[in-house]
Amino acid sequence: MNLQNIKHPTLLIHKDIALQNIRFMKQKADKNDLILRPHFKTHQSIEIGEWFKKEGIEQITVSSVQMAKYFAKHGWNDITIAFPLNIRELPDIAELAQQIQLNILISAVETAHYLFKHLNVPVNYFIKIDAGYHRAGIKPENIDKIQEIIHILNKNKSFTFKGFLAHFGNTYHATNKDEVLNIYATSKKQLTQLKARFSAQFPNLLLSVGDTPSATLADDFQDIDEIRPGNFVYYDLMQHFIGVCNLDKIAVTLACPVVDLYPERNELLIYGGAVHLSKEYILNKEGYKIYGQIVLLNNHALGNTPEPIYLSSISQEHGIIKADKDFIKSVKIGDLLGILPVHSCLTADLMRQNGGMEIIC
Amino acid sequence: MNLQNIKHPTLLIHKDIALQNIRFMKQKADKNDLILRPHFKTHQSIEIGEWFKKEGIEQITVSSVQMAKYFAKHGWNDITIAFPLNIRELPDIAELAQQIQLNILISAVETAHYLFKHLNVPVNYFIKIDAGYHRAGIKPENIDKIQEIIHILNKNKSFTFKGFLAHFGNTYHATNKDEVLNIYATSKKQLTQLKARFSAQFPNLLLSVGDTPSATLADDFQDIDEIRPGNFVYYDLMQHFIGVCNLDKIAVTLACPVVDLYPERNELLIYGGAVHLSKEYILNKEGYKIYGQIVLLNNHALGNTPEPIYLSSISQEHGIIKADKDFIKSVKIGDLLGILPVHSCLTADLMRQNGGMEIIC
Repeated sequence: MNLQNIKHPTLLIHKDIALQNIRFMKQKADKNDLILRPHFKTHQSIEIGEWFKKEGIEQITVSSVQMAKYFAKHGWNDITIAFPLNIRELPDIAELAQQIQLNILISAVETAHYLFKHLNVPVNYFIKIDAGYHRAGIKPENIDKIQEIIHILNKNKSFTFKGFLAHFGNTYHATNKDEVLNIYATSKKQLTQLKARFSAQFPNLLLSVGDTPSATLADDFQDIDEIRPGNFVYYDLMQHFIGVCNLDKIAVTLACPVVDLYPERNELLIYGGAVHLSKEYILNKEGYKIYGQIVLLNNHALGNTPEPIYLSSISQEHGIIKADKDFIKSVKIGDLLGILPVHSCLTADLMRQNGGMEIIC
Repeated sequence: MNLQNIKHPTLLIHKDIALQNIRFMKQKADKNDLILRPHFKTHQSIEIGEWFKKEGIEQITVSSVQMAKYFAKHGWNDITIAFPLNIRELPDIAELAQQIQLNILISAVETAHYLFKHLNVPVNYFIKIDAGYHRAGIKPENIDKIQEIIHILNKNKSFTFKGFLAHFGNTYHATNKDEVLNIYATSKKQLTQLKARFSAQFPNLLLSVGDTPSATLADDFQDIDEIRPGNFVYYDLMQHFIGVCNLDKIAVTLACPVVDLYPERNELLIYGGAVHLSKEYILNKEGYKIYGQIVLLNNHALGNTPEPIYLSSISQEHGIIKADKDFIKSVKIGDLLGILPVHSCLTADLMRQNGGMEIIC
């Protein structure tokens, strides 16, 4: 790592760690006979996409039509847009569906009607199931609604029902591994029942599930056909706090210049704030907000601090680190400190634009 | 407003409201014989910058060297970088200082030494004072440190001491107007004393203060020479909750497509999340998080809902609105709803990149 040229907050992407994370998930998918269709919203990068391609991954997930267009333009031709169909974007979807193998998400009868009426190109669709997260999707017990959607869309031979898609996003609010695995088991059971219910009619239907916590921690993938984790390529502090990964699996660090020292209040000021990290936080056991964890940057590798040190508050560009006197004494104005971000997806999204990223090989 | 072409989350900028806000602040500055040096980090836009220029504003504030370079390139030639000098950016600062009238911020003796040693072009500097916010700056009672910085820098005739700069950022945490005005009065008093202390030596020194809440609400600007509010051009829900502005002064609305309805749990799903709005929130009186307030969009003007309706949770692209059954019944999939953002600076920063902005005349 040559850190000398870093002038302002810069997201360091540790390629060796990211590759490890990609290979870990690919091996897990292969071992369990799963399609790995990683979510590219985490990195949104053509270059990092190539790392996946080299590991044999050709099917991807994105969260917006714009992102699908971007990756399609760069050679990805099998894409799931894992966001309930936004009918205002139907013309763009029609265009994309003519170029690539496109999978879209339906969760409403009205949307199915609209699609039937206004789309005339071949497209695959998943039905979005709410398996307990209660953000989006149809409840699995709502068989009538599911059948109605299939009934509407299957009148048009261009539309192919692929299966059921769910995101167990409530695992992100778990506080330990067991909670993740419990959420996973409960949610998976609902999907399994749904699959059983529809498999006579649709023997090839797929169950596609998403989140990084359960994709990382679970071992039982019976009945699951596809996983769509995204965050795992970088992981982050949130995943670490849940118990999903060790700190050394986090593949992104925001390098931030130290701009002032306040030993009298056990704080120091870095250049690095909400426009770089996002305002996502973790509450620690004492109820304090944590906006990132500090790591030492040197030219060889990342170094841990003797005791964990956290970013304790941020505003638009300012970050305040709380630390003991010894640590503050060891730092000079102009030094760089590394911040392990709370939520790497949001940080990477911001840093694509607000500063810069540097791949560390 | 022609809303038909809006396909995905789009930040509507209501020009008439923004102009009103700019004129209000300009008139207030003129009346009180203050320099208005608005903070451009809120909009970061050349086009919106022109609206200020037409009102006679030629001096601006930014929060990063990159932003200073951007506006300098587009004809702004009197810029204050209101962030403690980051010595890693000194080469860029040197370049800028040769092109425009540049004011930088010093808060550390070490930084002053570094500047003296490594910068050889004319530059003006403010000393950053911590008047109670405790984020950055020198405490006003720390006269020795202030004198030491002036002593170091004034050995070089290229460096001009402009005065003291403070940001009363704690007004953003106030819960009502009186709290804002109390913070303002307490903080201002400290600056006034500092001015008195140094005015014999520096008869032209300026007191420059920043925040939108006190710039909007205060009436007593005695001894203050310059104000640097930024947020006021758009205001936002946070300012409304503090009591700084009415809802009709908020000049930005995020237009979001409705993608699904969940009447059974009194919720609806919009396309619009953390990558559009940021994760900034307000806690309401009941302790629930608010990520935005809903307004109705129609082709003539914004409309308020009969009762306030809020965005109650967000993830990367999803937003969940909690509302009563009647409201949900009135909405269709494919409709657009407007979200008044909690923090317009962060929202505008995101929307410059992640979607689009549309100026509504």
